[in-house]
Amino acid sequence: MNPQTVIRLKRDGGALSGDEMRAFVSGVVEGLWSRGQIGAMLMALFQRGLDLEETHCLLKAMLLSGDTLEMRGIGVPIVDKHSTGGVGDKGSLVLAPLAAACGMAVPMLSGRGLGHTGGTLDKLESIPGFRVFLTPKEIRKQVENIGCVIAGQTESIVPADKVLYAMRDETCTVEHPALIAASILSKKLAEDLDVLLLDVKFGRGAFFEKLEDAEHLARLMVNLGRAAGCRTEAWLTRMHHPLGRAVGNAVEVEECISMLKGKGPRVLADFITEQVAGMLVLAGLCPNEEAALGLSREKLANGEALDRFIAMVKAQGGDARIVDDPQRLPQSLHVREMLYEEPETVWVKDVDARKIAEIVLDTGAGRRNADEPVDHAGGLSGLACVGDRLEPGNLLGRLHHSVPAREEEWVSRLLAAITFSSEAVQPLPLIHGRVT
Amino acid sequence: MNPQTVIRLKRDGGALSGDEMRAFVSGVVEGLWSRGQIGAMLMALFQRGLDLEETHCLLKAMLLSGDTLEMRGIGVPIVDKHSTGGVGDKGSLVLAPLAAACGMAVPMLSGRGLGHTGGTLDKLESIPGFRVFLTPKEIRKQVENIGCVIAGQTESIVPADKVLYAMRDETCTVEHPALIAASILSKKLAEDLDVLLLDVKFGRGAFFEKLEDAEHLARLMVNLGRAAGCRTEAWLTRMHHPLGRAVGNAVEVEECISMLKGKGPRVLADFITEQVAGMLVLAGLCPNEEAALGLSREKLANGEALDRFIAMVKAQGGDARIVDDPQRLPQSLHVREMLYEEPETVWVKDVDARKIAEIVLDTGAGRRNADEPVDHAGGLSGLACVGDRLEPGNLLGRLHHSVPAREEEWVSRLLAAITFSSEAVQPLPLIHGRVT
Repeated sequence: MNPQTVIRLKRDGGALSGDEMRAFVSGVVEGLWSRGQIGAMLMALFQRGLDLEETHCLLKAMLLSGDTLEMRGIGVPIVDKHSTGGVGDKGSLVLAPLAAACGMAVPMLSGRGLGHTGGTLDKLESIPGFRVFLTPKEIRKQVENIGCVIAGQTESIVPADKVLYAMRDETCTVEHPALIAASILSKKLAEDLDVLLLDVKFGRGAFFEKLEDAEHLARLMVNLGRAAGCRTEAWLTRMHHPLGRAVGNAVEVEECISMLKGKGPRVLADFITEQVAGMLVLAGLCPNEEAALGLSREKLANGEALDRFIAMVKAQGGDARIVDDPQRLPQSLHVREMLYEEPETVWVKDVDARKIAEIVLDTGAGRRNADEPVDHAGGLSGLACVGDRLEPGNLLGRLHHSVPAREEEWVSRLLAAITFSSEAVQPLPLIHGRVT
Repeated sequence: MNPQTVIRLKRDGGALSGDEMRAFVSGVVEGLWSRGQIGAMLMALFQRGLDLEETHCLLKAMLLSGDTLEMRGIGVPIVDKHSTGGVGDKGSLVLAPLAAACGMAVPMLSGRGLGHTGGTLDKLESIPGFRVFLTPKEIRKQVENIGCVIAGQTESIVPADKVLYAMRDETCTVEHPALIAASILSKKLAEDLDVLLLDVKFGRGAFFEKLEDAEHLARLMVNLGRAAGCRTEAWLTRMHHPLGRAVGNAVEVEECISMLKGKGPRVLADFITEQVAGMLVLAGLCPNEEAALGLSREKLANGEALDRFIAMVKAQGGDARIVDDPQRLPQSLHVREMLYEEPETVWVKDVDARKIAEIVLDTGAGRRNADEPVDHAGGLSGLACVGDRLEPGNLLGRLHHSVPAREEEWVSRLLAAITFSSEAVQPLPLIHGRVT
């Protein structure tokens, strides 16, 4: 099929058939479409939109553009969670082993951080020796043995997305719900899932600031996931403040280990156990959310989730001694403590996730461009959370970095990102609602 | 300026400033914009449109993307005509020398044929030895000496259009009035003109079938041309039937020589003298159209236009003996005469320009793709015109070709393109109206 025929149809507002969508996607992967044609088509899709059927065709064509994992015969429900990205968004490192401990299997393919949102792979790579690139065969074997794996996308899985994602970035056609949904779901459904829980975040630290945009995407993805035969649910969650008290890579791994030990930030640990409970119900392993929540809390509390985490780290070549000796994680040369020094008692009213993310990006713990390295040791720990009661001398946060010349600037920006109240503050719950 | 900043603005329906438009055009020429970005931008421009100010900025930026001819000090008005393309559209070969004979100077930069419309350069190249590629210096010298030149675009004139034109074709973003207007006018205004007459054709043999589309483009180009300081007028002309009786390359040259000798198709010769008269008035050389028409007819009738044509052919290395000996033009191996063979007298009611063009394309006298060669000898001559009275045995047309195996098919398609009436038929005038 001639590229122009397909481009002209969408240019003029027509709906593409399955054949036409496949012609586009395979043309992209096989290099039959020129870069100019791909750019023009992406802009035409952006301007004219895709209806649900077209989005489904795009998703299917992308999924079929490469290999998929093969999880048949594992014997337990194959599940995963996908988050649209946030600041301090480290939940996967706890969720995957916890879900495995609860009797589900998690073949999680994850990505690197870009811009203000961190990436799970970068966090895992701060563990000495941890290998994120596994073959589909290694992934299957680890899922069979341990119940969870967190790995990078292999080259052969959804190759169409690799080209399209880079070109959407280049051509300003990223922010379209149908293109986002097809991109996310093609990679998740390539994991051969029975259950998918989508964490669609909104707020200043999220990709979508506005709730209605997040809700639109959530509903679209739930419809698409179900149409593709996967039990899919989306939760709309607030992303105004950093999640937990650590933002970076090694610092977030350390916080996850705390949570797996039953310590760490309560709100975030609760959120993760709720997510796993949701997955247990979707997977049909628990009759209701109460029972599921009981199981999920138990597996976190009794150390089974931690055991799975240790097993996963070992299986992927990582140094599991970090669990008992976090000093084995990369350490910054400079750690600056910031204290609350005013005389009166206050409560933390706001911590601006976007401002925090920008500081962490500046320190080098995140990346602005896809090919930049990250500083695994850098970032923030012990960060104040909304609702914290502060007495003089209490910790506001620790800045881990390697550029003394910029320390003062970062500290003052950090202090400016936190505001206080003279009265007690009750943070809003993380979960705003569900799209079921 | 970041390409994404400019793309995003147009994507969201904003109007680009002069700086932003220049950033786009110079980014294209200097290779700073990726092909994907150019494709996306073209589609965004196509979808969102350009207002008059933006179109003017695009035109200016394109014009400034390369060199322009320098015609200052020639001492007579510098004029040109541009046709949006048709079937048998050979007028330039008569118009340029006639305008020169009338005391104007014509530095005509022209193009090759593509698709159903023929190209002036291809026609001229059917003259043995004729060189269409001249340097700006050679063009200037020839304009000074002879008053007219018809040459190809040099590489350095409006280089932005070369990239954008090819990419518009590739990305289905050709048919947008603002993009068309900027492309045409940038190349014409690069000739340093005082006067520009635009022949905007409509009908089944034209680029625009519908009158209203042609009229919209005409008005836009007149506004833009004037804003750029060039006395510009557009004529809306009918392009339903082939112009004249020849369609091809050498066959059209031969018909032009006939017209320059005061013979040839009357309707077309009248049209060309009217165009030159219009230019004389625009140039301020004649007080009114009547006087101008008198001058223009005189210079065609007295052979001065033919003399200029001969001088132009010689100056550009062509064999001027073709004027008296047309057999020196390329000749097809096969010439098939088609006669009207019914017993009753009829009048030609219709000759379908589009069907005729398709046959000529098939014989190889035109090109479907920009890099194809053309058969200079092929095409049609002696073609019936609307209004012709036909007796049994009269000529319907001659097919010049080199593929005997397809002759019968072409003949039957040709006959199917002509329809008859038992009553006299009066053809509509070529000129529908003027945009002044």
